[in-house]
Amino acid sequence: MGINLANFLSSKSKNKRMMEFQDLDHIDGVSISTVSADLYKDPRDDLVMFYFRDGANHASVYTQSKIVSENIKWNLKQKAKKIFSLIINSRNANCFTGKQGYRSLEKIAELASGKLSEKQREDEDQPKKIKQKEIIFGCTGTIGEIFPEEKIINKIPELISKIKYTQNKYIWMKAALGIMTTDTQPKLAMEECNIGNSKIKIFGIAKGSGMIQPNMATTLGYIFTDAEISNDILKKILKKNIATTFNAISCDSDTSTNDMVTIFSTGKIKHPKINNINDEKLLEFDEALNKVLLNLAKRVVSDGEGASKFIIVNVQNCKNENDAKKIAFSIANSPLVKTAIAGEDPNWGRIVMAIGKAGISIDIENLSIKFGELSIIQKGKLNNNYNEKNACDYMRNDNIEIFVDISNGSKNFTCFTMDLTKKYIEINADYRS
Amino acid sequence: MGINLANFLSSKSKNKRMMEFQDLDHIDGVSISTVSADLYKDPRDDLVMFYFRDGANHASVYTQSKIVSENIKWNLKQKAKKIFSLIINSRNANCFTGKQGYRSLEKIAELASGKLSEKQREDEDQPKKIKQKEIIFGCTGTIGEIFPEEKIINKIPELISKIKYTQNKYIWMKAALGIMTTDTQPKLAMEECNIGNSKIKIFGIAKGSGMIQPNMATTLGYIFTDAEISNDILKKILKKNIATTFNAISCDSDTSTNDMVTIFSTGKIKHPKINNINDEKLLEFDEALNKVLLNLAKRVVSDGEGASKFIIVNVQNCKNENDAKKIAFSIANSPLVKTAIAGEDPNWGRIVMAIGKAGISIDIENLSIKFGELSIIQKGKLNNNYNEKNACDYMRNDNIEIFVDISNGSKNFTCFTMDLTKKYIEINADYRS
Repeated sequence: MGINLANFLSSKSKNKRMMEFQDLDHIDGVSISTVSADLYKDPRDDLVMFYFRDGANHASVYTQSKIVSENIKWNLKQKAKKIFSLIINSRNANCFTGKQGYRSLEKIAELASGKLSEKQREDEDQPKKIKQKEIIFGCTGTIGEIFPEEKIINKIPELISKIKYTQNKYIWMKAALGIMTTDTQPKLAMEECNIGNSKIKIFGIAKGSGMIQPNMATTLGYIFTDAEISNDILKKILKKNIATTFNAISCDSDTSTNDMVTIFSTGKIKHPKINNINDEKLLEFDEALNKVLLNLAKRVVSDGEGASKFIIVNVQNCKNENDAKKIAFSIANSPLVKTAIAGEDPNWGRIVMAIGKAGISIDIENLSIKFGELSIIQKGKLNNNYNEKNACDYMRNDNIEIFVDISNGSKNFTCFTMDLTKKYIEINADYRS
Repeated sequence: MGINLANFLSSKSKNKRMMEFQDLDHIDGVSISTVSADLYKDPRDDLVMFYFRDGANHASVYTQSKIVSENIKWNLKQKAKKIFSLIINSRNANCFTGKQGYRSLEKIAELASGKLSEKQREDEDQPKKIKQKEIIFGCTGTIGEIFPEEKIINKIPELISKIKYTQNKYIWMKAALGIMTTDTQPKLAMEECNIGNSKIKIFGIAKGSGMIQPNMATTLGYIFTDAEISNDILKKILKKNIATTFNAISCDSDTSTNDMVTIFSTGKIKHPKINNINDEKLLEFDEALNKVLLNLAKRVVSDGEGASKFIIVNVQNCKNENDAKKIAFSIANSPLVKTAIAGEDPNWGRIVMAIGKAGISIDIENLSIKFGELSIIQKGKLNNNYNEKNACDYMRNDNIEIFVDISNGSKNFTCFTMDLTKKYIEINADYRS
């Protein structure tokens, strides 16, 4: 623990796969603040506030687990048209904390909405009285521990006093660091696109890095745009793009009780009105949103607990997308495939095993498997040019790409995962100690 | 590698959980032989023959994987009323070996049936000409490597010449050692029971220890009895008892392409005829068979790759058995639950997570969780007497028993697994090197 911005920026990353960070700058209508509420033994920022001074349209997707955290229950209950603040804490998941955990959120929302209303009166020409229901929460950390209500409440005034209306890359980095748990890297991404002739920004942050097998939204991801898009269209475009991004990753096949991805639209940039999800003016935004989500999702996997390699599994030419997805995740979640890759062993027999156990009928005579450009199995037979040395060489890469061609249809699915290493065991056997 | 009987019997087991071995002795109508066919770098027995001089009734359950090994294809094709020999090799799974792998089995069956027919002429008063289809195969090892046909063929004469008609515990141990791959312990079990007034024996051997999430039969298990039971009843009684034994274990959620469990009945003991699966005279046999299968299945899990702890997951009082099974396996297969147990961390929040992700609707207010006798969650709330120190003490046990009470029905399911340790990664990252 003890991750903070100074430490992070001064440390040389040991992670070969670490991707470059884009410079997220100012996005109109979003304000950020972070503090340490002493939720960790070693102090670090662990409480993050996003504040939308004029409110933001919004849409969320949540975990499909049958047991969900108190903050997700809270968020689902609020039906506000606009959200004024998102408050995220790390260290404690506020899950299985019962009525007490929920009441803590009520108290925090009460205090924060009051303080933010005061801030409105100080800063705005037309101050708005912010309601409790206009605040939503993200929580991440250990399940079943008493929610640190008092520690958080004590820090809300400071959190609000530190709000800055203008952001730069440092404050975005601080926010991304503040929501981390076992992550070793903050996760940020951005894209720009046009709606009509107006330039639109889409920024996002996310956190991983265990308990990650998405079954709708996964992990925490927050997306911000200065476009003006209605709640209804935000919901549709988010759901559509989650399917091939956050829902296409798996670190360890476990699904969190706290997963959420939310998109906020501040509407600060004037552009032609978007009428519906099929509006052609939305095409560029759609693509850019997909890029931001995919970028974040890949960063989550790439920094998955103990990961030494990033793995892309492409399953091609299936009867339908669902078959392709089942086979892809069967490979991506197989401990034997993941340990073989950790050991840089081109043990393609385990990929065959994982294809078989997916439960989809396939014709072996039509099955082809490639590692990157290297053909291993061609139409059911070991490629004549197969050379174990070449395959071993390929496995030394940091990024491993597997292609499985089923050849009985035209539907594909690509998912992303990482290898399974001793480090994963270390991190998770000692998580709370 | 380099496991052999002398090494094994002389070595002090480091496995605290190692169970006592029963002394399997002679069972009439079964003969055993083992040799080394040099399939491993360091010589060890890797080819095992069971020979039934008068044939045996038989029934098998096989892997549900959509990709199955060539020996399973062979076994499924033979429709012999009686089986005269089971030949098992380790090191090579004969899977994804194509027509060549299948033809190798044809050649081996041709040679072995000829040699065994010769042996019949030498040893029997009424010699029988043994057909190829009266021989079945078990294969286990790496997938996708060329099947070592020649090495095995060269050893068939020696294998047959070493057949002994009388067995003792050493030859059973040699057979159990001969079929091992990454197992560290041979797996043997026996029970005796009565049919009518006749004493009946049921002996069994099995091997694990990775790629084990049963989805019908799993791994290799071979059961032998001197009772006389028809193929049809054998099939029914095997399927019934597999459900709560071999199909209730998971080491790593992976399903092999080669799983098989076969029961052989030599009919050497005369007893009242068994007319059907519901025959009351079969009750004791049914129970004894379940004990042998459960004993073997537990040994497979207990010796699962890298296991340091044996875990029993009891899910109780569900609406139906399928719900209970889904929740039980969701817990048993969760890497986060398994690593927490490896770390002796009573992180019950991860059990809550695993219950949630199973996809079964539950009422948290009715949920109770116990570790052994220790009540953790009672009706949705942390037990007032919960004491982390006691829970930590409990986690130090070699056997961890988890009880999850859903309280919305009366159906239960119990499954068996082990923890996930660095040793698992070590074994599987370096399997082929």
